[in-house]
Amino acid sequence: MNSLNIVKIGGSVLEEESSLQQFLDDFGRIEGPKILVHGGGTKATALSKELGIPVRMHEGRRITDAESLDVAVMVYAGLINKSLVARLQGQNCNAVGLTGADLNVIPASKRKPDSIDFGFVGDIETQEMNGYFISRLLDEGVVPVFCAITHDGDGQLLNTNADTIASSLCSLLSENYEVRLTYCMDVEGVMLDKYQPDTLFETLNSEQFHHYKQEGVIKDGMIPKLFNGFKALENGVHKVSIKHSKNLLNGTETALIS
Amino acid sequence: MNSLNIVKIGGSVLEEESSLQQFLDDFGRIEGPKILVHGGGTKATALSKELGIPVRMHEGRRITDAESLDVAVMVYAGLINKSLVARLQGQNCNAVGLTGADLNVIPASKRKPDSIDFGFVGDIETQEMNGYFISRLLDEGVVPVFCAITHDGDGQLLNTNADTIASSLCSLLSENYEVRLTYCMDVEGVMLDKYQPDTLFETLNSEQFHHYKQEGVIKDGMIPKLFNGFKALENGVHKVSIKHSKNLLNGTETALIS
Repeated sequence: MNSLNIVKIGGSVLEEESSLQQFLDDFGRIEGPKILVHGGGTKATALSKELGIPVRMHEGRRITDAESLDVAVMVYAGLINKSLVARLQGQNCNAVGLTGADLNVIPASKRKPDSIDFGFVGDIETQEMNGYFISRLLDEGVVPVFCAITHDGDGQLLNTNADTIASSLCSLLSENYEVRLTYCMDVEGVMLDKYQPDTLFETLNSEQFHHYKQEGVIKDGMIPKLFNGFKALENGVHKVSIKHSKNLLNGTETALIS
Repeated sequence: MNSLNIVKIGGSVLEEESSLQQFLDDFGRIEGPKILVHGGGTKATALSKELGIPVRMHEGRRITDAESLDVAVMVYAGLINKSLVARLQGQNCNAVGLTGADLNVIPASKRKPDSIDFGFVGDIETQEMNGYFISRLLDEGVVPVFCAITHDGDGQLLNTNADTIASSLCSLLSENYEVRLTYCMDVEGVMLDKYQPDTLFETLNSEQFHHYKQEGVIKDGMIPKLFNGFKALENGVHKVSIKHSKNLLNGTETALIS
């Protein structure tokens, strides 16, 4: 099978021009089929504030009312996605910027209100996804760039966590490719002490994940990322690693192992 | 040759929910390969105002500084484009939303400052465009939805008039398709008196265009639209018509003739 690299970026690398340029240069050097997935919550929060739209969170997850969804679509699918596409084109990387609504790649279900109503948030069922056009584009040397927007198949756009989009694309495409998923962050990987580089876990298995989560060493945004990563491994993804965006092309990382 | 319908919408149809729904229903009924091109200046102007960004115009054309470009990208490529894609998906029309940067379909040149600097505005050279992926997508039954954004091939997004994008796509694709271009507006076509439906020109030739332009009967936004339309006819486009968006499927229109 051909190998396929799926790289997810988010956080500060999208905010700092020099980091972003280095990342895009490195991403451009990855050979063979590749997909970029990006978040952009910081910029969406900034635009919401400028427009006087309250940003509501519940346990680290964004609550998406109609106005917040418009902001998410403008920032993720518009500003960030198309800027990345133009910059990749500028380095002769033939990119196409997509939401999950485009080509109906990622249909999702609006999350049912439980104790909390998350609003226009979409949950993905991998078996509903459509990989045909993505495979065709990859075969033609095109680089799909996905943002954190899906749709309900009935005309409604939905907001979906970018880490989840990345791991879902991995599961979808692992039938036809040897998929490597890389979550780029602004830390080197999973560390016992984030200020001590020598405490980096070079590998992490599921038991260690649960142990260190209980100990409070692994916390916040790292938890859903690792959860998605181990799920991708279970679904046949060849390799999942977590690394700093500046280390895209070298081996400093935490590799998840089953 | 296969026929291909390229339909451009803009103005009030994008603002009024019932008109938009009727238009999308009608658009969905067009058989065979088709492309939708849209503007969205009204929404971009509204967002600029909300953000306190001054809207500057020169002879009816928008001056696009860096902040205005970000607004244009958010509104055209994000909000409007992806909402249209989701709605088309909702009626089983497999749409993909694109700028001219995606798949490098429409490279453009930043307009050189002359007596006036229009800022980040792109002029298209049809011979630089790339029709390969659009033809492949059309062959697969996909409906491309283009917004009014292009790029300079060197990493910079640019703002480009949607009428021009529509006519350029027509010229590009007329080698392989019998292309029909429809400009949808909020008037029935070219009329001697816009309040008198019986003064509609059922056909209009280039000489009439120049005559009635000099007389001041044809004016404002209709002038660049007709200019683009006649240029498309010269470039081998099979049919160009101007009609009200509510008349997409019937014959009330002004057809341009050479």
